[in-house]
Amino acid sequence: MSERMSRRKVFGLGAAGVAAAGAGAIAARSLVQEPPVAHATTSDPFPFYGEHQAGIVTPAQDRLHFVAFDVTTGSRAELVDLLQEWTAAAARLTQGKEAGSFGAAGGSPEAAPDDTGEALGLPASGLTLTIGFGPSLFDRRFGLAARRPPALADLPKFPGERLIPELSGGDLCVQACAHDPQVAVHAIRNLARIGFGKVSVRWSQLGFGRTSSTSRAQVTPRNLMGFKDGTNNMKLEDAALLRDQLWAAAPDGADWMAGGTYLVTRKIRMTIETWDRTSLREQEEIFGRDKVKGAPVGKQNEFDPVDLAAMKPDAHVRLAHPSGHGNAHLLRRGYNYVDGSDGLGRLDAGLFFIAYQRDPRKQFVPIQMALARTDPLNEYIKHISSGLFACPPGVRDAGDYWGRGLFG
Amino acid sequence: MSERMSRRKVFGLGAAGVAAAGAGAIAARSLVQEPPVAHATTSDPFPFYGEHQAGIVTPAQDRLHFVAFDVTTGSRAELVDLLQEWTAAAARLTQGKEAGSFGAAGGSPEAAPDDTGEALGLPASGLTLTIGFGPSLFDRRFGLAARRPPALADLPKFPGERLIPELSGGDLCVQACAHDPQVAVHAIRNLARIGFGKVSVRWSQLGFGRTSSTSRAQVTPRNLMGFKDGTNNMKLEDAALLRDQLWAAAPDGADWMAGGTYLVTRKIRMTIETWDRTSLREQEEIFGRDKVKGAPVGKQNEFDPVDLAAMKPDAHVRLAHPSGHGNAHLLRRGYNYVDGSDGLGRLDAGLFFIAYQRDPRKQFVPIQMALARTDPLNEYIKHISSGLFACPPGVRDAGDYWGRGLFG
Repeated sequence: MSERMSRRKVFGLGAAGVAAAGAGAIAARSLVQEPPVAHATTSDPFPFYGEHQAGIVTPAQDRLHFVAFDVTTGSRAELVDLLQEWTAAAARLTQGKEAGSFGAAGGSPEAAPDDTGEALGLPASGLTLTIGFGPSLFDRRFGLAARRPPALADLPKFPGERLIPELSGGDLCVQACAHDPQVAVHAIRNLARIGFGKVSVRWSQLGFGRTSSTSRAQVTPRNLMGFKDGTNNMKLEDAALLRDQLWAAAPDGADWMAGGTYLVTRKIRMTIETWDRTSLREQEEIFGRDKVKGAPVGKQNEFDPVDLAAMKPDAHVRLAHPSGHGNAHLLRRGYNYVDGSDGLGRLDAGLFFIAYQRDPRKQFVPIQMALARTDPLNEYIKHISSGLFACPPGVRDAGDYWGRGLFG
Repeated sequence: MSERMSRRKVFGLGAAGVAAAGAGAIAARSLVQEPPVAHATTSDPFPFYGEHQAGIVTPAQDRLHFVAFDVTTGSRAELVDLLQEWTAAAARLTQGKEAGSFGAAGGSPEAAPDDTGEALGLPASGLTLTIGFGPSLFDRRFGLAARRPPALADLPKFPGERLIPELSGGDLCVQACAHDPQVAVHAIRNLARIGFGKVSVRWSQLGFGRTSSTSRAQVTPRNLMGFKDGTNNMKLEDAALLRDQLWAAAPDGADWMAGGTYLVTRKIRMTIETWDRTSLREQEEIFGRDKVKGAPVGKQNEFDPVDLAAMKPDAHVRLAHPSGHGNAHLLRRGYNYVDGSDGLGRLDAGLFFIAYQRDPRKQFVPIQMALARTDPLNEYIKHISSGLFACPPGVRDAGDYWGRGLFG
């Protein structure tokens, strides 16, 4: 480990993407694949091929379109065909090309275009596409039951959650992140188009977060409660931590997942109108941080070390802190959402929480159980959707495809 | 008129914002207020005070949050108080400040903050806030019936529309446009917060369109059918046209609306999955334009003059063309939307159509009636929400407020 740490220093990068499996060649490629800092321009594409999927340690883009699909075909061969078609399309889309040849070649007038066209002329905009496989994919339909990873264990029921079944779960998911929502939407929409007759959209969520053009002014983005969110996120420059807590490895019990990771999504509706009438003191005590600066209780600045003892026992930061959960971290990558209004005079708004981790049983589950039981924030939030997905390792090259290790 | 045209040329600007009422001083101020070209940076604020409201001829920002409110107080005095409070907040928000003093001054710990905080540290991001008054505001509650403008006549029923009443209408609306959705959402959310107990959110819509960082690559943005949308929009550099067809004037029948304009919104759901399986030939014949370039039928380039006779009689461009409606133009300012999925395996997506005009009876209504009757595009779209609002003239200075001419 110290060897890899020093290699990282040799590369001169305080960097994300220093990967699990060993050899120097692979580590070097990973460093090239996943830039550790924000893009120079929002137009530069991220590489599609690599040891890990992009969109996980990739610096969070501004916009999200997340979709969960139900597989409607019962044919394993058709599903594999689809994953191959999707992979080819994703390799093109993430590089700023159309899903098919339509834009460049014009297209046959008698056929439906093989790209829907709304991103013609737009650059890649930092698009990443990240696929995941839900627990329901491992039922009897496709003969995958024996290959279900132990870490893909169904989440327990959490106190207070009010999950809407139609907005939860899914056989497959794709996370599209980009600096331009039109580009993210275009990618998801074309994957759905390609999947016509084999998959159908189960649920879908748009989100927004930081804005690249302005993110220099606001390093840690704020959630819709007005607090900085992500100050104590998993540190992408900590290679040992990523290896221990982000990337799955063969000994975890599913060799096809080595280099992959597990994704938990939670749609967390906020009753922002009630929150907005809560005093500043109560808001800050609930979070355990100062609202303007984000400094933890008793400290001056956002990144000062937290003093848990100075906080109320049920402060959010204290309840979620790794020290209370066997040093369990999460790589959070959530986005704010507003879905219009709720018909009761309120905005339908909140956080679409996204967390990547090596094993939800040891990470998301204990942390969320502690929060669900005692976090006073629960008075202002409600979990209404939940998703759990195994995100396979990256696609190595043009001969590989999403999930080949699982189906091959 | 030729005088004003030449003055415009003297100013050297092919410009928006050349205003209705006469004197040179006013015309010059308008030119200063509303930059004719995209911002140098996305951080520069647009002026709030002026003859016209911003957000109308302002070059379209990237993101939209549109909200319609019901007034829940029966007190005219309370409503006027609210409009004054909103105006003061809007003057601050559009300049990149918080809605109240919270951010700068910290705020009393025992009170709820007078700003919700999620835009702390973000720049103005080109935010504009534009208010409108719906027909229902002119019922008996506030004694305004006699002041209802003739041009604010209820829209007729259009063939094929499937309006959802709860997503339509509204006593008041506010259009927030910005380059950053967090900034647009923050503004609407704070107006709703300030209005607590006096108004409630009736419906609300997020939208996206062009992206400033990429708009140089795609001058005319594309709708979710993949076609360029807005090629033949009202020309902002045509001062005579704006005076004739955009800005209301005192002789129109409501003197308090002079310098204002009328807004029609339509939420147009697209069945994009069906559209995506339609041949390129049929798609292009329906629109009357080439999909890749946007060139009209028989022409080579997007901005070539249209040859209506070369198109099918029911091509969209031909049906909507001003020549068929007494030379009626609309200033369109719509945004694409995706609201997740519809529970039937499809994306819930389309166009949130926004059009400003001097008199909907002579502009939107005849154009939409022609489209609703015969446009083959109707097979792929459905109007599900409708809004009609009188947008008063701009706020002149800090002593003025939104709607003073109506209530004063």
